[in-house]
Amino acid sequence: MFFASDNGSGAAPEIIAALTRANDGYARSYGADPIMTRVKWLIRTLFEAPEAEVYLVATGTAANALSIAMLTPPWAAVFGHGEAHVATDECGAPEFFSAGAKLIPVAGDHGKITPATLTAALSRVGVSGVHGVQRGMLTLTNVTEAGTVYTPAEIAALTALARSLGLPCHLDGARFANALVATGATPAEMTWKAGIDVLSLGGTKNGCLGVEAVVLFDPAKAWEFELRRKRAGHLFSKHRYLSAQMEAYLTDGLWLDLARRANAMGARLVQGLAQVPDARLLHPAPANMLFPAWPKGTNARAEARGAIYYAMPAPEGMEGARLVASWSTTGEDVDALLAALKP
Amino acid sequence: MFFASDNGSGAAPEIIAALTRANDGYARSYGADPIMTRVKWLIRTLFEAPEAEVYLVATGTAANALSIAMLTPPWAAVFGHGEAHVATDECGAPEFFSAGAKLIPVAGDHGKITPATLTAALSRVGVSGVHGVQRGMLTLTNVTEAGTVYTPAEIAALTALARSLGLPCHLDGARFANALVATGATPAEMTWKAGIDVLSLGGTKNGCLGVEAVVLFDPAKAWEFELRRKRAGHLFSKHRYLSAQMEAYLTDGLWLDLARRANAMGARLVQGLAQVPDARLLHPAPANMLFPAWPKGTNARAEARGAIYYAMPAPEGMEGARLVASWSTTGEDVDALLAALKP
Amino acid sequence: MFFASDNGSGAAPEIIAALTRANDGYARSYGADPIMTRVKWLIRTLFEAPEAEVYLVATGTAANALSIAMLTPPWAAVFGHGEAHVATDECGAPEFFSAGAKLIPVAGDHGKITPATLTAALSRVGVSGVHGVQRGMLTLTNVTEAGTVYTPAEIAALTALARSLGLPCHLDGARFANALVATGATPAEMTWKAGIDVLSLGGTKNGCLGVEAVVLFDPAKAWEFELRRKRAGHLFSKHRYLSAQMEAYLTDGLWLDLARRANAMGARLVQGLAQVPDARLLHPAPANMLFPAWPKGTNARAEARGAIYYAMPAPEGMEGARLVASWSTTGEDVDALLAALKP
Amino acid sequence: MFFASDNGSGAAPEIIAALTRANDGYARSYGADPIMTRVKWLIRTLFEAPEAEVYLVATGTAANALSIAMLTPPWAAVFGHGEAHVATDECGAPEFFSAGAKLIPVAGDHGKITPATLTAALSRVGVSGVHGVQRGMLTLTNVTEAGTVYTPAEIAALTALARSLGLPCHLDGARFANALVATGATPAEMTWKAGIDVLSLGGTKNGCLGVEAVVLFDPAKAWEFELRRKRAGHLFSKHRYLSAQMEAYLTDGLWLDLARRANAMGARLVQGLAQVPDARLLHPAPANMLFPAWPKGTNARAEARGAIYYAMPAPEGMEGARLVASWSTTGEDVDALLAALKP
Repeated sequence: MFFASDNGSGAAPEIIAALTRANDGYARSYGADPIMTRVKWLIRTLFEAPEAEVYLVATGTAANALSIAMLTPPWAAVFGHGEAHVATDECGAPEFFSAGAKLIPVAGDHGKITPATLTAALSRVGVSGVHGVQRGMLTLTNVTEAGTVYTPAEIAALTALARSLGLPCHLDGARFANALVATGATPAEMTWKAGIDVLSLGGTKNGCLGVEAVVLFDPAKAWEFELRRKRAGHLFSKHRYLSAQMEAYLTDGLWLDLARRANAMGARLVQGLAQVPDARLLHPAPANMLFPAWPKGTNARAEARGAIYYAMPAPEGMEGARLVASWSTTGEDVDALLAALKP
Repeated sequence: MFFASDNGSGAAPEIIAALTRANDGYARSYGADPIMTRVKWLIRTLFEAPEAEVYLVATGTAANALSIAMLTPPWAAVFGHGEAHVATDECGAPEFFSAGAKLIPVAGDHGKITPATLTAALSRVGVSGVHGVQRGMLTLTNVTEAGTVYTPAEIAALTALARSLGLPCHLDGARFANALVATGATPAEMTWKAGIDVLSLGGTKNGCLGVEAVVLFDPAKAWEFELRRKRAGHLFSKHRYLSAQMEAYLTDGLWLDLARRANAMGARLVQGLAQVPDARLLHPAPANMLFPAWPKGTNARAEARGAIYYAMPAPEGMEGARLVASWSTTGEDVDALLAALKP
Repeated sequence: MFFASDNGSGAAPEIIAALTRANDGYARSYGADPIMTRVKWLIRTLFEAPEAEVYLVATGTAANALSIAMLTPPWAAVFGHGEAHVATDECGAPEFFSAGAKLIPVAGDHGKITPATLTAALSRVGVSGVHGVQRGMLTLTNVTEAGTVYTPAEIAALTALARSLGLPCHLDGARFANALVATGATPAEMTWKAGIDVLSLGGTKNGCLGVEAVVLFDPAKAWEFELRRKRAGHLFSKHRYLSAQMEAYLTDGLWLDLARRANAMGARLVQGLAQVPDARLLHPAPANMLFPAWPKGTNARAEARGAIYYAMPAPEGMEGARLVASWSTTGEDVDALLAALKP
Repeated sequence: MFFASDNGSGAAPEIIAALTRANDGYARSYGADPIMTRVKWLIRTLFEAPEAEVYLVATGTAANALSIAMLTPPWAAVFGHGEAHVATDECGAPEFFSAGAKLIPVAGDHGKITPATLTAALSRVGVSGVHGVQRGMLTLTNVTEAGTVYTPAEIAALTALARSLGLPCHLDGARFANALVATGATPAEMTWKAGIDVLSLGGTKNGCLGVEAVVLFDPAKAWEFELRRKRAGHLFSKHRYLSAQMEAYLTDGLWLDLARRANAMGARLVQGLAQVPDARLLHPAPANMLFPAWPKGTNARAEARGAIYYAMPAPEGMEGARLVASWSTTGEDVDALLAALKP
């Protein structure tokens, strides 16, 4: 009954197998391994983006912070949701990597920025000449930190506002595959066709050990990215182990299969919660992450019965939780949790 | 015949096995995995340092740059050999992580700082009050970039100079196990007993996939280190895979066994080179890395015969090479290389 | 009719005279001039703080950003009002100087933080261990950007909250003399007796050419401040010209006399606005800065009649303005402006 | 007998008069004052550079560090003489402003880089792909820290090497007027006609209170410079006082007159030293700064007789000094010093 986070799950057997295979013999280091060539080809193909440049790092924070630092000067504002991972869960990594850019919290229910809230935020920044920070870039997250999902059309509406001001757009896709599955969108529809310039494509949470791809749909700054990655200690010498994970992840649709499993377990949770007395969801939960609220005492009871998850704030008189399903969550896990939650 | 770098080798089977074992089930993330508890215990025991704090990262550059940033303020000088990895091969990572500290190149033959060259460097910095950068710290490398090795006594002589000025001392031990094997020193003798405050303990080059431990012999700044690691994107969510590598590496002396193999192959190369006409070593080579020089044409011939290594500068009229043996280098590899080098 | 800003005024004749006097002969540079010794003595005496260290810079942004960088590590939050100068009008200087600290906007009507809003902000930050930025420090502004004033008791209530969490407290006193005059507080009451650790003491806006003192009530970090100042290019070689301004400013109560004139003109404006049809103040205006709102068309009319000030947002159906009186504003200026505002 | 530094001198009466004149009435702040318009026109005219952008700051360190940060990315090398002010006397300001660029000390006798030493330095950096810092820019100083002077042809030879690699070129002209007078070159010949992209044009040392102009011969990065200046706290609110100094300085050739006086006193010192027994110059001294060496005991004797200057290292058996003449040095000062030096 582990629902604390999808990063508590292990790696899928296909990924482990690929890692073991990649271990044979010698390989050129620092990204010159032949597997990386195939990874690049895979991503270009899957994203219908033959010009894209692709780089691998081992953590989502590295992928996000390097991307942001590449897209904005230090004296500019990064517009993102106030609850976004980059704003609240990376200990200021974007500020560190960018040499002091300013994250502007954009409002929005259910973890989602709207054209109205983005317009409001954009109108407040960069309007006092040299005295204030300039407008720098937009960063979105899909799946959001609230477990909700942007459709490609919603993303496009937001990037259009940014791009009309010349601002580049980044997508934190730590749970990108879950978002694809939840919306049925193609990788291209969710990214460059919707105005995204750079994608952090997550593998870690969805069945890898630790690998994220940064996809630059416009390769103009590729060399700058390589220098930033090296200088930040995120270029792996034995790079083949990153490559092998990502290759297996993207081969034969494994990434989508794994996300489908996680999302299916999320849906099973949503359905089951309808039977938990007085439980309700604080946000829509189309993917693998739920934010339910329920009567006080529920968390203690479930914990005593072996359920593992994070308690969360909830409306007055209730208590809340964050439940995350992963690729390795089983139907039995879900049913056991639901049983543990009931009085 | 792969002698380009020890980072071109794969991972030892024990490491891969440990990784696979660690993959079972769920685990707390971000370093709260139970394997990490054992890693800490192992390092404290092996280094006779019950108070030491231990953190894992995936690259040597991260280990070094985070350590340096923790030990020096931005307005200070980092004294290290002019050819040190931190000075030449990390694309300015120490400067980035430290917000602009200044690396002062210290001279010394064969990649080694001496008390005389360190005294000279120390006497030139921090002598103009507020106008110049202050003296910040000392960083040493063992095995050095020239393939040579410091004895504990040599390290102690250098750290004594630094410590007399109140400067903390870091050791870049990307090839620490090779240095131990080459000198017969214990981990404690080579580090805190010789005045080292923080060690970058390498695993990657010596049979792991990608893991380095940072060992803080004085735990006073442990929390600062944790924040710096997170903020730099170097805290792994699925941390167990770092832990598992490091645990296996340090268990039953595997790390020393692997280094012994590499150093033995280094010695076999040294011995064999005596038979290569007009070849000589530019630096002593007590560990697993050699810098030979030989008649022009040798490199082309060896390469044509399948040898893989880096050509290097050499004295007038000759050409040079860097040869690195790893844990996986075999006697046959060495003999084949020696044959390829001969006319 | 110049009411655009107090930084549009010239320097008081006493300041110019002091500058001219200081020009005679040679002087030791970089703060070793004898006038600086007297400045230090003056500030220690006026603030009843014999241990305080005092440094001069030429701009308020330098004073604030250097102070903030000294008081907080890069991975921490700076709590300040969302409309504070450091947050909106310094192009990210605090982020630059601090290597990426995060400014957390604290709410509060009329430009003033309250214990309730500060408590709320403090409770949202630093509660997720290593994942979020830590709590760093508090920065207040007096006179505030809204023209309002904190009493010493109000400041003490806020610093007590910060200090209970171990956070140091900075006061941006770009208009410190105006705040003293408005409240009748002594310099000590408004600063260290109210829990302030470091003060940016403004001279520029109140009759100097360009000088601000940074007062460290706790001198423990004095040397660090000196290094930061030098490294940021804010240590003047011909320092005597900063010293001379500050000495004259603080001698014989000139600073308070100048502020009294400015505040008196502010009060005259407040009184006169009562006669301007349908005009009202959006914030209380106890010092030298007013934020009135009035019927649409007023700004255009006043401008056409020669009034110089900034238009500002206002409630629906009205238009707003910012009016700032300075030491050199005359009663005739005020009366002319009031006449220009009337239909 | 003050020869410690030209920054120990006061301001020329014309500068003080201009400051006083500028004090009348109100002025737009932050560089929008009308005097600044004339300053820009003056510099464009004097430098025959109608496109140049011009910004004022108050210190040489600010001018240099802002220029360097604008010209190089953080992951690159700044090539400059090992004894240059930016390398030794700014407490790491270039590293701070540039977010960690790496200063590469270039060798050269008498404080001057030569094509050979620059070629050697350029050939050692940027040759290991992503692993090392990239080549960033060249910075020269004229008058050099050794008191010597580059001719325009010498500058052009060095910038040609840099520009052939695409590197921009900065000139630290803290004593630019002294260099012009010493060589007879025009401002244009010494700068853009010799391949200089950005000039730090010093006023402070040569008769101003504290003002330096940054001249961007290519205005492409002008807005970036403005943002960097503001963000670093170097944009003055009461900017007219910087403008007034610079206007007076450049009007009617005052800057060259002042430098001529200083250089003449330098020449008088050179001539006089020929009469001091066993004294000799360690570097040629064509401008206003001399580095003599003389028998031990000379410094103590001169000091006892009232001479003020810095002692310096000297060849074995001798002792050294740095003597700097300024615009306000008189013939009597020089003669008194020479008398004090004699046995």
